[in-house]
Amino acid sequence: MVGTGSIEWSEGTVRFINQAKLPDEEEIVETSDYRRIADSIRRLEIRGAPAIGIAAAFGIVLAVWDDRLTPEEYRARFQEAWEHLSKTRPTAVNLFASLGRMKRAFEETAERGFAGLREALLGEALVIQREEIDACLRIGQFGAGLINPGSNLLTHCNTGRLATGGEGTAQSVIVTAFRQGKVRRVYVDETRPLLQGARLTAWELSREKIEVVLITDSTAGYLMQVGKVDAVVVGADRIAANGDVANKIGTYSLAVLAAKHGVPFYVAAPLSTFDPALVSGSEIPIEERDPMEVTHVGGNRVAAKGINAFAPAFDVTGHELITAIITDCGIIQNPTEQAVGKFLQKKKAVAPVVV
Amino acid sequence: MVGTGSIEWSEGTVRFINQAKLPDEEEIVETSDYRRIADSIRRLEIRGAPAIGIAAAFGIVLAVWDDRLTPEEYRARFQEAWEHLSKTRPTAVNLFASLGRMKRAFEETAERGFAGLREALLGEALVIQREEIDACLRIGQFGAGLINPGSNLLTHCNTGRLATGGEGTAQSVIVTAFRQGKVRRVYVDETRPLLQGARLTAWELSREKIEVVLITDSTAGYLMQVGKVDAVVVGADRIAANGDVANKIGTYSLAVLAAKHGVPFYVAAPLSTFDPALVSGSEIPIEERDPMEVTHVGGNRVAAKGINAFAPAFDVTGHELITAIITDCGIIQNPTEQAVGKFLQKKKAVAPVVV
Repeated sequence: MVGTGSIEWSEGTVRFINQAKLPDEEEIVETSDYRRIADSIRRLEIRGAPAIGIAAAFGIVLAVWDDRLTPEEYRARFQEAWEHLSKTRPTAVNLFASLGRMKRAFEETAERGFAGLREALLGEALVIQREEIDACLRIGQFGAGLINPGSNLLTHCNTGRLATGGEGTAQSVIVTAFRQGKVRRVYVDETRPLLQGARLTAWELSREKIEVVLITDSTAGYLMQVGKVDAVVVGADRIAANGDVANKIGTYSLAVLAAKHGVPFYVAAPLSTFDPALVSGSEIPIEERDPMEVTHVGGNRVAAKGINAFAPAFDVTGHELITAIITDCGIIQNPTEQAVGKFLQKKKAVAPVVV
Repeated sequence: MVGTGSIEWSEGTVRFINQAKLPDEEEIVETSDYRRIADSIRRLEIRGAPAIGIAAAFGIVLAVWDDRLTPEEYRARFQEAWEHLSKTRPTAVNLFASLGRMKRAFEETAERGFAGLREALLGEALVIQREEIDACLRIGQFGAGLINPGSNLLTHCNTGRLATGGEGTAQSVIVTAFRQGKVRRVYVDETRPLLQGARLTAWELSREKIEVVLITDSTAGYLMQVGKVDAVVVGADRIAANGDVANKIGTYSLAVLAAKHGVPFYVAAPLSTFDPALVSGSEIPIEERDPMEVTHVGGNRVAAKGINAFAPAFDVTGHELITAIITDCGIIQNPTEQAVGKFLQKKKAVAPVVV
């Protein structure tokens, strides 16, 4: 299942790997209930911006899969599921882009009296999934061209098969460059609080036979200082019109450190991650998670009892700190409002841009 | 016991809190064996540069506490204990300063045929402890003068009673400023891998009734970006002649981020932490810890099986990133080789400088 992405549609059910239990347990969840999908997104059993988008689309399909409903029932179920799913994670733009496409598909069939609703919605969800898989492959190809032979790379959080429909975003760049013989070693930030780097990325890269060195997040600066990092490659959860990037908490610190040491800082994301409606990163809502994510590790309390904690899920990296954004339609060097605007304009005609 | 520092001498035994078990269990260890002291230093049951220095001194005393030995036996035991203790932690200069003083005291009594050896060594160890307690108080007084009213402070690792003989170093600054009504809130980095911030600092500061907010280490940059941090205060494990500072891994990243945001970055340490023999921080040996400290949390594996990890205990922060070094003998503003040299020269006559 990992071989074909982490989420699959099969005959009225959705199957996915419970990422919260990895790497110790490969639990496959099978559900026909969109509420389970929503819960899984909220609990990070399904995580990664593209994967969330795909899962939400399949969730909508599940909500109206019963083909004996009246038009009113279809609309009520769709509306309920749509709202429920849209409330799961506020930062990942793919969620809203995906839900937007499903709404359009729904309204089109509504105009035709709901004829072929199931097929139309499933078709749209499968197209979203297919597009993400293709986008990953193209991101890998474009991005690998930026990596010099013999590179030590550093990455943060998880951007691989689990997080996306296909090969991943930043991870697709890393894996593609590795297959081209250019990657010596990958330093993986453990990525507190939820340790996606330690649990997921280190596991996925090791399966590709890449040399992985796991580090605590605050070791990255030291490694750059002593010249051990040739490039940083990360993903994105949302990108504003000016190229500012929201990504997993800690990304901003990495970008500041990379700039300080002249280390290229690359962000890899499909065009579907861009949100041109946002002028800059300061408009991106930052999700606050349960403080228990900080005070506990794997269900065990690590902090002293009664200690208050703060757990933002993301931070925003200003475009001036980003060497290039690697998209599925090409590379935006030195991203600025102008560069991003021009790029999106040019690609709109040919690419699967979702607004 | 916490009230009077974390290590106590009592009639031929040393008592200390096992910091590795805090905050869940307040285990008091009592031992008459210097090897247990050495083991405890190595396992971080005793940690914090000043506390390590004090513990090593008491360890030496324990090794020769038996007053029925021959001169040859005294020398053999001393030598064995000295070497054993000196191999525990390579970075903390207090360890070597303390062992240096104990050696001098030993040789002085050796010249007198070992008359009063026990008393001389115990006396020296108690002086080392007393000096550290006094140094903490003075550091707090000097440092609190740098904190503006209404400040949100950020600190890393643990620099309080547990880590020192007395009130702490950076923590003495924080607590003293708090008692002066100047501190609104303290953000505490959890400090992976061993979570001294989450386990010890958050616990100690809460007991002082200070408002504590625990964060993951990579959240500090975000907080500075959004203007929530007015000053960073950290300790030091060794300071070179030019003002470069070795401290817990992650300190360097904080200093880079603080400089980027114009946030004052203060290092608090007694003069005993200076090592004028080292021209710059690049000469400070960086201890590498067991990779299990990264792959595991509290004995539980968090990373995928078989993953390789890298666990440097410290990093080095260049003096150009440091706003001021707060010592027990005053403040070194904008530390440079010249400023540090002049300061140490001036203070040598009046202060308990250990070389």
